[in-house]
Amino acid sequence: MKALVYNGPGQRSWHEVPDPVIQDPEDAIVRVDAVTICGTDLHILKGDVPTVERGRILGHEAVGTILSVGDGVRGVEVGDRVLISCISSCGRCEYCRKGRYGQCLGGGGWILGHLIDGTQAEMVRVPFADRSVYKLPDNVSNESALLLADILPTSYEVGTLAGQVTPGDTVVIVGAGPIGLAAVTTSKLYSPSSVIVVDSAPARQKAALDHGADLAFGPEDDVVETIKELTGGLGADVAIEAVGVPATFELCTQVIRPGGRVANVGVHGAPATLHLEDLWIKDVTITTGLVDTWTTPRLLSMLAAGRLSMPGLITHRFGLDEMQDAYDVFSRAGETGALKVALFSDESKDLED
Amino acid sequence: MKALVYNGPGQRSWHEVPDPVIQDPEDAIVRVDAVTICGTDLHILKGDVPTVERGRILGHEAVGTILSVGDGVRGVEVGDRVLISCISSCGRCEYCRKGRYGQCLGGGGWILGHLIDGTQAEMVRVPFADRSVYKLPDNVSNESALLLADILPTSYEVGTLAGQVTPGDTVVIVGAGPIGLAAVTTSKLYSPSSVIVVDSAPARQKAALDHGADLAFGPEDDVVETIKELTGGLGADVAIEAVGVPATFELCTQVIRPGGRVANVGVHGAPATLHLEDLWIKDVTITTGLVDTWTTPRLLSMLAAGRLSMPGLITHRFGLDEMQDAYDVFSRAGETGALKVALFSDESKDLED
Repeated sequence: MKALVYNGPGQRSWHEVPDPVIQDPEDAIVRVDAVTICGTDLHILKGDVPTVERGRILGHEAVGTILSVGDGVRGVEVGDRVLISCISSCGRCEYCRKGRYGQCLGGGGWILGHLIDGTQAEMVRVPFADRSVYKLPDNVSNESALLLADILPTSYEVGTLAGQVTPGDTVVIVGAGPIGLAAVTTSKLYSPSSVIVVDSAPARQKAALDHGADLAFGPEDDVVETIKELTGGLGADVAIEAVGVPATFELCTQVIRPGGRVANVGVHGAPATLHLEDLWIKDVTITTGLVDTWTTPRLLSMLAAGRLSMPGLITHRFGLDEMQDAYDVFSRAGETGALKVALFSDESKDLED
Repeated sequence: MKALVYNGPGQRSWHEVPDPVIQDPEDAIVRVDAVTICGTDLHILKGDVPTVERGRILGHEAVGTILSVGDGVRGVEVGDRVLISCISSCGRCEYCRKGRYGQCLGGGGWILGHLIDGTQAEMVRVPFADRSVYKLPDNVSNESALLLADILPTSYEVGTLAGQVTPGDTVVIVGAGPIGLAAVTTSKLYSPSSVIVVDSAPARQKAALDHGADLAFGPEDDVVETIKELTGGLGADVAIEAVGVPATFELCTQVIRPGGRVANVGVHGAPATLHLEDLWIKDVTITTGLVDTWTTPRLLSMLAAGRLSMPGLITHRFGLDEMQDAYDVFSRAGETGALKVALFSDESKDLED
């Protein structure tokens, strides 16, 4: 089969590799029908995630069709159309047994396209299939389901829920890429008074407004002072970091009010400065996290019920074998205006086709 | 009256100043019967708290007797023996009305010995007296009550509760000064499996064990590795920072397991490095805070019931006019072995006398 292979920082190739095979009774082999590229893949290509080895097939978000399952798989069968989640779960370790699948100690967690080969390929081996894929209702399209593989549960759990967005809150979201936009969408489930998005790209500011943000502006607009003015001098209740660089994290710690929460969602490759000389007295809560995907069934039922959508988020569509073009477009988002790109195999029968 | 005055970094004096007078109908004037010195006072003297102006009378922890009250005071009267809390509350602002008195916007919060003159004096003016002092039961001594003015509620609210200490947890407390020792005492109210204290001073390690810690060792003992070994390779559930320097804060972020909580209690004068390149994926929660003292009535009832004590914490006792000697002993704790020092006026009739 063909696959997108990471060859070290800055290096990727799309070429023939051996087909995946069942290695464990709990494995499934899934034909990839629809797949996307994550900002995290770009972080990997920058060298920010040193746990990814050269030769690794990238990708941790896909929708596909079960081709074969091991003897231990009971929840799905050959032919099922499934969401492949970015998080796998052994189901047996201390963390899995308390619902923290992202921190799985038994060989799961974020493994696809990280510690084992991922979904940017024609096929993928998915370990712990019963707890790593979700059978899709007929009325949920491949394209919609793709957003549940990572960005919606990540922004919801690590951003909105960790930040405890509460009715009436002022929420600042720094970064209006796919995760930041999904944070707008999931924050608004909790009826904040105001969602303010900060991003340097005017096109992304517009996307934020299209996704329901009340205000969007750039870092040149004296963000800290502007947000203070908008909040009676106090600052935001919640700031969600959706970029992954020190400056945006530090900005989040500056814009919150006493008692505020900073929810870091970004993937970071460098340390940040924590201004404890200001923050020690301010009752702030800072959270980090990898998604557990415990909310995936909830989000999936909302999607099926028509209660959750992110129209316009997928800006570019490709055939699966146009993977390198898709990476080029996604990694030059500033020029191309890409938000989320999606690639479809010839076999993908999408409701939206 | 005599008072301890801050004259800028490193400079303090004990000298005659004007007696305090009622300035607002909600004020009380309190005769100071027992008072202590806080680690925060030493931070002020180091210059770590630039909001303290020269000429300020320090001190925010005391027990005293009401000498006079303004017309608006209803909860206490002349002659009452009261705890003077480190936190005052206007009772009217947004923060007070949700119980976050430490962040009071209406002129309260931590004001004594900070923004207005404090308790290290023969008398003190206490604003918002109804919400800043607590009438003491007869069976609670001045000396015991002193610990409720700051260290017990601070370690409890900002350490134990913010860190969500839960039965079965491994709790690491960095720093075994009075706050760290009170964090041992208040953590143990929640039945952790293990309380491990890290402090460089052998005498403070011993004090930690005396206060109920299960283990105590110094930073030379390869803390991170030792704690990992003690916790099956995972790290602590909770780390409580009770020093206030970057190295101890960073140590706390290193010793916690995935999903762990760091509760910062220390007063910081400099920024710390936050290793987001390691922490972004680890589901950590970091909290900072100033005590609100909403738990003071609870702690006071426990003290009255004999369910809370910190025997041996007060290591040195002085007359009120020996204030400078008390500071000398407290600020050279490494040599003197001081944990908490207490000063008593001639009028202090203590149950323990």
